Amino acid sequence: MPELRYEPVTDTWVIIATERAKRPKDFVPLVMAAKKEGQNCPFCPGNEDQTPPEVMAYRPGGSAPDTPGWQVRVVPNKYPALDDAAADPPRRDFFLSGPAAGRHEVIIETPDHDRSLARQEPEEILLALAAWQERYRRLGQDPGIAHTQIFKNHGVVAGASLEHPHSQLIATPLVPAAVRSRLESTRAYHRERGRCYYCDTLAAEEREADRVVYADGSLLAFCPFASRFPLEVWLVPRRHAASFAEADRGELRSLAGALKAVARRLLEGMRDPPFNLMLHSLPYRETGYRDSFHWHLELAPRLTVLAGFELGAGMFINPTPPEMAAEFYRA
Amino acid sequence: MPELRYEPVTDTWVIIATERAKRPKDFVPLVMAAKKEGQNCPFCPGNEDQTPPEVMAYRPGGSAPDTPGWQVRVVPNKYPALDDAAADPPRRDFFLSGPAAGRHEVIIETPDHDRSLARQEPEEILLALAAWQERYRRLGQDPGIAHTQIFKNHGVVAGASLEHPHSQLIATPLVPAAVRSRLESTRAYHRERGRCYYCDTLAAEEREADRVVYADGSLLAFCPFASRFPLEVWLVPRRHAASFAEADRGELRSLAGALKAVARRLLEGMRDPPFNLMLHSLPYRETGYRDSFHWHLELAPRLTVLAGFELGAGMFINPTPPEMAAEFYRA
Repeated sequence: MPELRYEPVTDTWVIIATERAKRPKDFVPLVMAAKKEGQNCPFCPGNEDQTPPEVMAYRPGGSAPDTPGWQVRVVPNKYPALDDAAADPPRRDFFLSGPAAGRHEVIIETPDHDRSLARQEPEEILLALAAWQERYRRLGQDPGIAHTQIFKNHGVVAGASLEHPHSQLIATPLVPAAVRSRLESTRAYHRERGRCYYCDTLAAEEREADRVVYADGSLLAFCPFASRFPLEVWLVPRRHAASFAEADRGELRSLAGALKAVARRLLEGMRDPPFNLMLHSLPYRETGYRDSFHWHLELAPRLTVLAGFELGAGMFINPTPPEMAAEFYRA
Repeated sequence: MPELRYEPVTDTWVIIATERAKRPKDFVPLVMAAKKEGQNCPFCPGNEDQTPPEVMAYRPGGSAPDTPGWQVRVVPNKYPALDDAAADPPRRDFFLSGPAAGRHEVIIETPDHDRSLARQEPEEILLALAAWQERYRRLGQDPGIAHTQIFKNHGVVAGASLEHPHSQLIATPLVPAAVRSRLESTRAYHRERGRCYYCDTLAAEEREADRVVYADGSLLAFCPFASRFPLEVWLVPRRHAASFAEADRGELRSLAGALKAVARRLLEGMRDPPFNLMLHSLPYRETGYRDSFHWHLELAPRLTVLAGFELGAGMFINPTPPEMAAEFYRA
């Protein structure tokens, strides 16, 4: 029977559409090759001059900036969506606009072009996460930046234009409305029950157990009850902390292990489908939500299309019950 | 210079990303053939037994239901996302769910398999819109239905699984949260200024003129100031009315003409890109919003990917300024 399931953080009802139920193996992921660029890949070692100058890198051998020898390298996006130098747009009568000020950076996760997340060792993933955190913290010191969204697009259908493994960050001068409403809904939950919504969800998911994908001492990964996407996974640290800036090395290490496990199952069991990975973290100066927000990652495989119903009504149709998805990941 | 533009109905900031500016001709739309099905297309005349029995049809010759001779035919979706017969899901401790009750129907717009929207005559489009309205009104009489979302997915990337021209409706037992917040934001505008946001937008777009795509006595079509999608178009009736149920024949006729013009430009100038078309209309029993909401259509070509930034932060990056998009449509 189809079922409507409620996701309170985004106030969204999801249709778990069992009439059109799809087991993971029923999907034919739309796998399209991103630009390989061959020897011209701007993210490959030796081509450092094809990106803007790096803002940071891990260089165990102490090599010079913008030369080979790095493990992780962070550079400004060559075609930034936001730009600190953006000027004020013309004033208009009725319409509201502002300068697109901010930062748009690329985290090149590995020097190895063919080493996608699923193929990286947890130690390598840990380094990329450490770079995420270093940039996340640093950008928070800029008074012009209100929020940093870190994300990864894997595969063309998920928005990746280059194949070389990388993630991105976009730091905005404002708190996006969708982020604001997540803060509000989880604070409302906290006011009502005196507890963090995510802490309660961790306990409930662990109790029901059938949506759990991965667990260790510091992290739980599960397919959320009201998954919007087939095979969606949330990776949530057990320790309550509102900001990703507060994650400790042990938590990042757990996260790296869980990401490796999830990505490898997708690669091996699903022929490497496209996916997006999103960090959710408290915006820098929103201290009023420290008890009610809880940083975590959400991974959304892109096996269905966001079409007219989703864009118009904001509801999602998910043909794969999360209990079935979790079984796939645990196999 | 890049610019942030504000869309007050959805409280969304859009990045008009001029650093990565794309003229319409720069896009290479991801055009993928949907299932042609050849003689087995379930929507073609002669195959009426391949769909559930029709709920209505326009049959000028008076032919029998579920036989050929129709101009427009409406049938329940064979694999409905929602189902009036859905049973209550099991009660759970922490998680909220409900039966996925409702209706999911397909409006087959023409008997001609190859006659996509751009190739239909305005008179044919008018018939399909009349069928939309007839079903929209009828479903509103069901006390179990709170809202009907009508939409059209054109092209595989926009979510169409069958090629034969069709649109869909999903009638839900609740008002989706995204619809609810559009009602609230436009009512807040109305309370503050004493006017309808859409009526004011019509006046402002007509005044600035450079985003207008199509105009006649009863309708204005324009690329909205804070377009989330490249080549996005809103089609808004000049007469204030909250519900699509109130549209008169003249307004539907204007809408048909505008849709034809827009779809033809996309077909001829852009090699038939995928798009979604969404109706926005007052939910059936939300009478408190009659003065502040204003029914209209939104058309979103799918030339960019909704990726990690959009899914995570809910902000959009649009590489095509709407002024440039409108110029394309007017050409």
